[in-house]
Amino acid sequence: MSDKAVILVSGGLDSSTVLAIAARQGYECYTLSFDYGQRHRSELDAAIRVSESMSVVEHKVIKLDLQAIGGSALTDTTIAVPERETAGIPVTYVPARNTVFLSIALGWAEVIGANKIFVGVNAVDYSGYPDCRPEYIASFEAMANLATRAGVEGNHLSIEAPLIDMTKGQIIQAGLELGVDYSQTVSCYQASSDGVACGKCDSCRLRAQGFFEAGVKDPTRYQNNA
Amino acid sequence: MSDKAVILVSGGLDSSTVLAIAARQGYECYTLSFDYGQRHRSELDAAIRVSESMSVVEHKVIKLDLQAIGGSALTDTTIAVPERETAGIPVTYVPARNTVFLSIALGWAEVIGANKIFVGVNAVDYSGYPDCRPEYIASFEAMANLATRAGVEGNHLSIEAPLIDMTKGQIIQAGLELGVDYSQTVSCYQASSDGVACGKCDSCRLRAQGFFEAGVKDPTRYQNNA
Repeated sequence: MSDKAVILVSGGLDSSTVLAIAARQGYECYTLSFDYGQRHRSELDAAIRVSESMSVVEHKVIKLDLQAIGGSALTDTTIAVPERETAGIPVTYVPARNTVFLSIALGWAEVIGANKIFVGVNAVDYSGYPDCRPEYIASFEAMANLATRAGVEGNHLSIEAPLIDMTKGQIIQAGLELGVDYSQTVSCYQASSDGVACGKCDSCRLRAQGFFEAGVKDPTRYQNNA
Repeated sequence: MSDKAVILVSGGLDSSTVLAIAARQGYECYTLSFDYGQRHRSELDAAIRVSESMSVVEHKVIKLDLQAIGGSALTDTTIAVPERETAGIPVTYVPARNTVFLSIALGWAEVIGANKIFVGVNAVDYSGYPDCRPEYIASFEAMANLATRAGVEGNHLSIEAPLIDMTKGQIIQAGLELGVDYSQTVSCYQASSDGVACGKCDSCRLRAQGFFEAGVKDPTRYQNNA
């Protein structure tokens, strides 16, 4: 029997590539997504499509009301998504989001007996989010091993962030080699309900630049005026 | 203006004491509770009563479906709550619960600009939960300072666990000195909807022993047959 892994999937380009990497490494894949009050539901639809296409054992969508704490353009509709680059940590940063998502993944990993959690964070094209840095991931792993039954019983749990040092172009090349169909994924921070991208937000800009860098055609559906 | 603190409140004895400690230290108190699929709602009612009685600035209840991952007698109704002491980590342990709750508290702290998070964990009468140990709290604090904007910008955030080395009796004595009304609190793992305790579960046993140790009358309402 192969080992189990929990993979955080948002429906975007990075996490879909991570899922393909975990599957190729032979893990039984359990995918986890969050209905956290994000602006668009199309990323959840994409997470479901991507999980199905990669034959995961189980895909869970956990409801969690991060709108209740607000503080981000992604969870507070009164804060606009910026359509050009900004200095510092951008307003699309959702306070402690990766920590919250990894924590719930940790709980599920403990219940099913998985000792790997895969996450698509990336320190190169990372939009300036503090919780996408390698030192953060290492620190979460150390904490996770003290937090759980596994840690007490000596089964090491590791957080795998295989994209952490890759550029968006390298991620896309790796994914294409693994057969990822990027037309199924949605990265846009303000995609329409059927997954059409704005072409203007940070996430769209990084993604488009990635396809350009990788030298492959961008399969993203953009709005006509983008 | 005084500093802000987020305090995790469950409606139980420990977290109510922690709230009284934070208030006495002069913090503007923001309390946070979770509707996470626990067996009884009476602990949430207690969290509301306790927050109101201590004049907090705001009390938030976040919905989060931990039943979806299961794995504990507190979130899975097919697992019985034990009515006598068990060896090792008990089945009432909710996988990664403190990590999940602290992570969401971290997000809220970041949004409101609080640099303290208070939590009622206790390493003495801790029921054997891995996420109640001092090394776990220290590790979470280290991770939290890498996870957030505050960490990047050099504002240290600390996790305060003032009860960590206290016995249940000492906690009760400290709370009584601060005016905590323990008749408002609910600790039982399987309390009735109006907050009457079973008198048999781990949590009831530790609580009753605490009042005995403190040499004060136990104000808990128990079922007639307890």
